[in-house]
Amino acid sequence: MKYHPDTLVPHKSAVMNTPANILAEDVCLPAAVIKKSALENNIRWMQQYADTRGVSLVPHGKTTMTPWIFQAQQQAGAWGIGVGSAWQASVAMASGIHRVLMVNQLVGKANMQLISRLKAHYHDVDFMCCIDSLTNARALSHFFTACGQTLDVLVELGVEGGRCGCRTPDEALALTQAVSEMPGLRLRGLELYEGVLHGDNPQPQVEALLQNAAALACQMAPQVDGEFILTGAGSVWYDVVCNVWTTAQKPPQCRIVIRPGCYITHDLGIYDEAQQQLMARDSVACDLGGDLTPALELIAIVQSVPEPGRAIVNFGKRDSAFDAGLPQPIAHYRDGQALALKSGEIASVGIMDQHCMLTLAADSDVQVGDILVFGTSHPCLTFDKWQTLHLVDDDYNVIEELVTMF
Amino acid sequence: MKYHPDTLVPHKSAVMNTPANILAEDVCLPAAVIKKSALENNIRWMQQYADTRGVSLVPHGKTTMTPWIFQAQQQAGAWGIGVGSAWQASVAMASGIHRVLMVNQLVGKANMQLISRLKAHYHDVDFMCCIDSLTNARALSHFFTACGQTLDVLVELGVEGGRCGCRTPDEALALTQAVSEMPGLRLRGLELYEGVLHGDNPQPQVEALLQNAAALACQMAPQVDGEFILTGAGSVWYDVVCNVWTTAQKPPQCRIVIRPGCYITHDLGIYDEAQQQLMARDSVACDLGGDLTPALELIAIVQSVPEPGRAIVNFGKRDSAFDAGLPQPIAHYRDGQALALKSGEIASVGIMDQHCMLTLAADSDVQVGDILVFGTSHPCLTFDKWQTLHLVDDDYNVIEELVTMF
Repeated sequence: MKYHPDTLVPHKSAVMNTPANILAEDVCLPAAVIKKSALENNIRWMQQYADTRGVSLVPHGKTTMTPWIFQAQQQAGAWGIGVGSAWQASVAMASGIHRVLMVNQLVGKANMQLISRLKAHYHDVDFMCCIDSLTNARALSHFFTACGQTLDVLVELGVEGGRCGCRTPDEALALTQAVSEMPGLRLRGLELYEGVLHGDNPQPQVEALLQNAAALACQMAPQVDGEFILTGAGSVWYDVVCNVWTTAQKPPQCRIVIRPGCYITHDLGIYDEAQQQLMARDSVACDLGGDLTPALELIAIVQSVPEPGRAIVNFGKRDSAFDAGLPQPIAHYRDGQALALKSGEIASVGIMDQHCMLTLAADSDVQVGDILVFGTSHPCLTFDKWQTLHLVDDDYNVIEELVTMF
Repeated sequence: MKYHPDTLVPHKSAVMNTPANILAEDVCLPAAVIKKSALENNIRWMQQYADTRGVSLVPHGKTTMTPWIFQAQQQAGAWGIGVGSAWQASVAMASGIHRVLMVNQLVGKANMQLISRLKAHYHDVDFMCCIDSLTNARALSHFFTACGQTLDVLVELGVEGGRCGCRTPDEALALTQAVSEMPGLRLRGLELYEGVLHGDNPQPQVEALLQNAAALACQMAPQVDGEFILTGAGSVWYDVVCNVWTTAQKPPQCRIVIRPGCYITHDLGIYDEAQQQLMARDSVACDLGGDLTPALELIAIVQSVPEPGRAIVNFGKRDSAFDAGLPQPIAHYRDGQALALKSGEIASVGIMDQHCMLTLAADSDVQVGDILVFGTSHPCLTFDKWQTLHLVDDDYNVIEELVTMF
């Protein structure tokens, strides 16, 4: 390998001039930017929500995998960071996070070795992962016993036809009993992810699952020393999780933990819709004042206007999520100046690896070299396209380069 | 930023033991692996195909963005490497590639600055990019003239309703004429991408486009000093491009350049289907002997078998392309030993960020902790999920870690 990383550019949206302004094209475009004011608003808003509800916030870190953001979330009061894999746990710990919830099963020898080494190296970090089978529990107990370590675990409760998790309270109780007799494991509580429930109106099913979980927690509680952790909630149902669990009968020392992830940058797609529904049904969220606001944008350049009504912009599947709607234009600039952009005047209609195809209204004035700003849907899969995102102020001055770890 | 990259793991599929074998779980799974024998076969096969046809091969590097692979392709005889952006061009040049075709428009001040710096730094590299508008041509000429440099360009020919490119030969000729008078630009030839043509049987349209391009090239030729570059062909129609262009009337000194990308790892999805169709219609490919073979696999672990007929495996949208069919199981291992896997016995039916959902046949024996090997569809979007892929031998011993640059 003769590649020299000390060469001219460190990553694909490199800063070419400093100080750098995105609209002045000081950065190689396309670029992903995070608006600092919106990011800070979202961190503050969700922490206030959790505080008001009397629950703990463990933001799901897999959304951003950005150490700078993990640290900002912890500094604002997050009780820990959620992750989806052993590698993600290593990134969280190396970022200085004190408590890491791996809301997933730990499988495979190398992944277990990694967690063992992390526990030895970061001995002050409170780490736990999820189990849903005797097979996995035995393998983990065997491995960590041989390492002279104890692994903290949460039993996962699932739903028929869903993802992981014990399908019935009886299964979960049997697993609880078995774990209590395994030398390498320490039971800490119960985990679920209600976001696997879909359909026209999943709320009653979500509420039933949460009620079952609270009742199950009471039955499991004798096998847990000290505080019982009861955790659920992605970015769609966190109000319902709080409603049900704060009022349900629970173990005496019970910490409710919510784990939204996508709130951190919010979006202009599926999570915007979910949050609007939440604000409509949840008086606590309304009374807080303010709301989540989109923080993540894609900035790209028009590279071709090859025929009337059509333009091509220089981002593609390599730069953006496209699984929950295409990024759509929200602002239009030429030579650094904003142009008027009517709703629907420019629309993304197709995407390839390095290109996005736009339709233009008949009276639209779009030229090669113009900058378009795009709002996104589903932040997770946009973050993982970038080794670096640019933190910007409201005038698109680059404040800091945020390094991701995917 | 307190993140310490010198910590325990350098990337998400880190090697935990050396020597490392994937099936022995010495590597954090999931992992993306490339079979060396298949990769070498594909590099050799496509180079032989181009040599036999008497055309030049410029593999599209955006597929892999892997310097080690760029170098292997160049060593095997590739005339250059294709890229889709200025950043990708910088990676190719830093990898020691002597000729870089940016088969895309160069727009934006920072991207132009980057190319200018690259041209100054790698002064022996032959670089060219595409133009399809006077606006872009004027901006480029102005910029590179101010830098005291000349930018080599190819005029792009497109199709109505397609992506970039002049829509008619007359437009392309007008642009050719204008470019010949611009001090900062040097015209090198004509580029197109026939892969934007879709439909039930696009072959006649593809052939018509190629014929038009050859005729256009003859008209453009007086404005090109020396060799005329005529380039097209992704991984689907490269035989048709060779058929039409090797027999058409062309400029006297004409180099035909084909640019397939996905052939490098091939797949078990859309490109397998395309290659089967090509082998059925193209006697040159058949007579070569051998064929492309899938080189890219995902290796993952079963983390949950929560109910009859259902298993969850630990890769997801964060690890794999999912835009052209889900990765499907092709092999099953337990404790390092292969188990029989009947066709359709295990099937991927859903994917989330960190999980893939499988259905199991009634008599299927799948257990938590088993390893499943998955074939993929559309390699580009799997490569860009990994900072490192593992080059393995046929027994899944890790030979080398291949670093990607996305």
